[in-house]
Amino acid sequence: MRGNSPPPIGTELMSWSESLATCSETDEGLTRSYLTDQHRAANELVQDWMQTAGMACHIDPVGNLVGRYEGAEPGLPALMTGSHLDTVRNAGKYDGMLGVLTGIACVKALHQAGERPNFAIEVVGFANEEGVRFPATLTGSRAVAGTIDPDCLSCRDAEGITMAEAMRAFGLDPARVGEARRRAEELHAFVELHIEQGPVLESKGLALGTVTAISGATRFRIDLFGMAGHAGTVPMSGRRDALAAAAEAVLLVERRCTGAAGLVGTVGKIEALPGAANVIPGQASFSLDIRAESDAVREAAVTEVIAGIRGIAERRGLEARIEKYDENPSCPCSPWLIEQLERAIADEGQASLRLPSGAGHDAMTIAEIAEVGMIFVRCKGGISHNPAEAITAEDAELG
Amino acid sequence: MRGNSPPPIGTELMSWSESLATCSETDEGLTRSYLTDQHRAANELVQDWMQTAGMACHIDPVGNLVGRYEGAEPGLPALMTGSHLDTVRNAGKYDGMLGVLTGIACVKALHQAGERPNFAIEVVGFANEEGVRFPATLTGSRAVAGTIDPDCLSCRDAEGITMAEAMRAFGLDPARVGEARRRAEELHAFVELHIEQGPVLESKGLALGTVTAISGATRFRIDLFGMAGHAGTVPMSGRRDALAAAAEAVLLVERRCTGAAGLVGTVGKIEALPGAANVIPGQASFSLDIRAESDAVREAAVTEVIAGIRGIAERRGLEARIEKYDENPSCPCSPWLIEQLERAIADEGQASLRLPSGAGHDAMTIAEIAEVGMIFVRCKGGISHNPAEAITAEDAELG
Repeated sequence: MRGNSPPPIGTELMSWSESLATCSETDEGLTRSYLTDQHRAANELVQDWMQTAGMACHIDPVGNLVGRYEGAEPGLPALMTGSHLDTVRNAGKYDGMLGVLTGIACVKALHQAGERPNFAIEVVGFANEEGVRFPATLTGSRAVAGTIDPDCLSCRDAEGITMAEAMRAFGLDPARVGEARRRAEELHAFVELHIEQGPVLESKGLALGTVTAISGATRFRIDLFGMAGHAGTVPMSGRRDALAAAAEAVLLVERRCTGAAGLVGTVGKIEALPGAANVIPGQASFSLDIRAESDAVREAAVTEVIAGIRGIAERRGLEARIEKYDENPSCPCSPWLIEQLERAIADEGQASLRLPSGAGHDAMTIAEIAEVGMIFVRCKGGISHNPAEAITAEDAELG
Repeated sequence: MRGNSPPPIGTELMSWSESLATCSETDEGLTRSYLTDQHRAANELVQDWMQTAGMACHIDPVGNLVGRYEGAEPGLPALMTGSHLDTVRNAGKYDGMLGVLTGIACVKALHQAGERPNFAIEVVGFANEEGVRFPATLTGSRAVAGTIDPDCLSCRDAEGITMAEAMRAFGLDPARVGEARRRAEELHAFVELHIEQGPVLESKGLALGTVTAISGATRFRIDLFGMAGHAGTVPMSGRRDALAAAAEAVLLVERRCTGAAGLVGTVGKIEALPGAANVIPGQASFSLDIRAESDAVREAAVTEVIAGIRGIAERRGLEARIEKYDENPSCPCSPWLIEQLERAIADEGQASLRLPSGAGHDAMTIAEIAEVGMIFVRCKGGISHNPAEAITAEDAELG
């Protein structure tokens, strides 16, 4: 139908992604975290595109950008779609954003054709899915699902600013976060499109996949306390080096999580204090993230790893402070949505694959109030993707 | 002689130490690094005390504070003493400073008694022994010995400021650093008093020790480069996690340096990048510090550890960048100074012990231009010491 000419919607999606990537806290690479000036700039940019696509827009009380395209009559339950607009540090341009932009492109096509389906469509740009600035993830989608933990408003960023303070500085009222909640009756279903962020579709030569379930995840912040000392004068036998203990813990995580299907464990952040080359670390602090499609597999790994870290600390005479700050069970996608998405992919002449999502997504929190489905787009190396895929995704979205 | 009344000189040393500890970059704990406002404030405070003790003072071209007390006639070669006025992060009050202050107390006693020995006495407050702000240590004493590496002027602090720029901001001319150099003929000898910073004297119940040699040290900055990726989607088998490799390296250092007498190895700083809980570290950077009294023992350990780290990187498919930025051979103290210091300690009715110094000191750089001796003062836990010891140290200094 389109032959070899550049796919027009895919080209627009790529162009939008490039523009959006300019809203970054860093000059090099892309970093956009919650309640920053760049978060505001991204919301404003995407809001323009939503309005052009015929949607009415607002920023909800937690900072989500919500665009609504009414159906055949006003006030119908909505097919909600979208993803998040915040990023990790030094991120790619599509993780999260592509799901929002594809939703807008779908609505734009309906709007241009003058079509109104027998349900409304809402496209949401969720805030703070990644949890880079504050030790709390999925803040935007949790507020929508009504499952936000009020304690998270008092968590602090690296500069000691609480989330509530940052909300006020952003122009939001933290006392009104509860009002972001949506009722189940308002929603027909939630469908999220996202890049796969993994190698499976690419290795099978497929553009698209449908997600069977989103892996559960458990996250910890771990602090080990030993004894600082001079790197030249304290004999090895008399040391209580907190970093050496943390190193054992990192390798324990790697060893325990290797080999079991669908299980992964990661230490992504680490700090040794006081942090000078000639001082034995008296404290080591690190993050721990364990995920699995099966809750039982994840829980067994968590239990063993935490017990192992306590054992390492005890053997070395250290104190361990282990704080679980985030936990999401595995979230299955609805069978009827999986089938409908597969049919839409087949209608485009594409083969698809059912696969689990190792990454957490906003869909798993929205599952509290709506049936959810997810579609994965193949990505090259996790940071780039192909315009043709984005097009196929656009069509699938309409399914 | 003094019975149980508080020792007056020791009391003054403790009081000076407390005052000096207020020159800190941090509100809590003590941090005073090179070419900061606090460095300037410490120089000014100590200069006041030197002048009261009868010394003529100046700041030399590298930022060292030099006080001189003339001998029986002006211009005699000097017995140089002193230590450093900069600190590590979150440091104690005596490491370095006590050696400067004890020298001033000795001169003050001579001055008050109207005595002029047949040599001059110089007390030096050396700059940047610790190397916290810039990746370069012993800058002040190296300038005095004429062994400063001109390249170190272009090294940068964490904010990207070069040492030369910081010197200009401090009021120094980096082009004139060479003029801090002293000729061997100007010096009679160099004696440094320092807290032991280790547990040996305390464990033997001794107040003072004489140092046989200062351990050699080699320091590296090591960067490992793997591949960043999403913590949820990249299977364990497909990862090139730079932090897991660094963790192996930390444990290798610990294992290789344990068991050999006088050998110690420390990783004091570590960073994982990009540094988010949900991203597999694509880069890990850490410091490595290896010391031994015997150069052969140290060199063998360095060779094995570096080869081991390269092996870890290779096995895991990572790139390793290993930069040696500092190396000092072991520095023996002069036998006649060891004996003279021991006699002075015995004259005070104290037993003493000969022991090596695991920590590097300014004395080892000054050894290039003068014979050196060192006296160690017992310390409790490495961060505090006893006024009575300081007094005994003061008498020994006069030996």
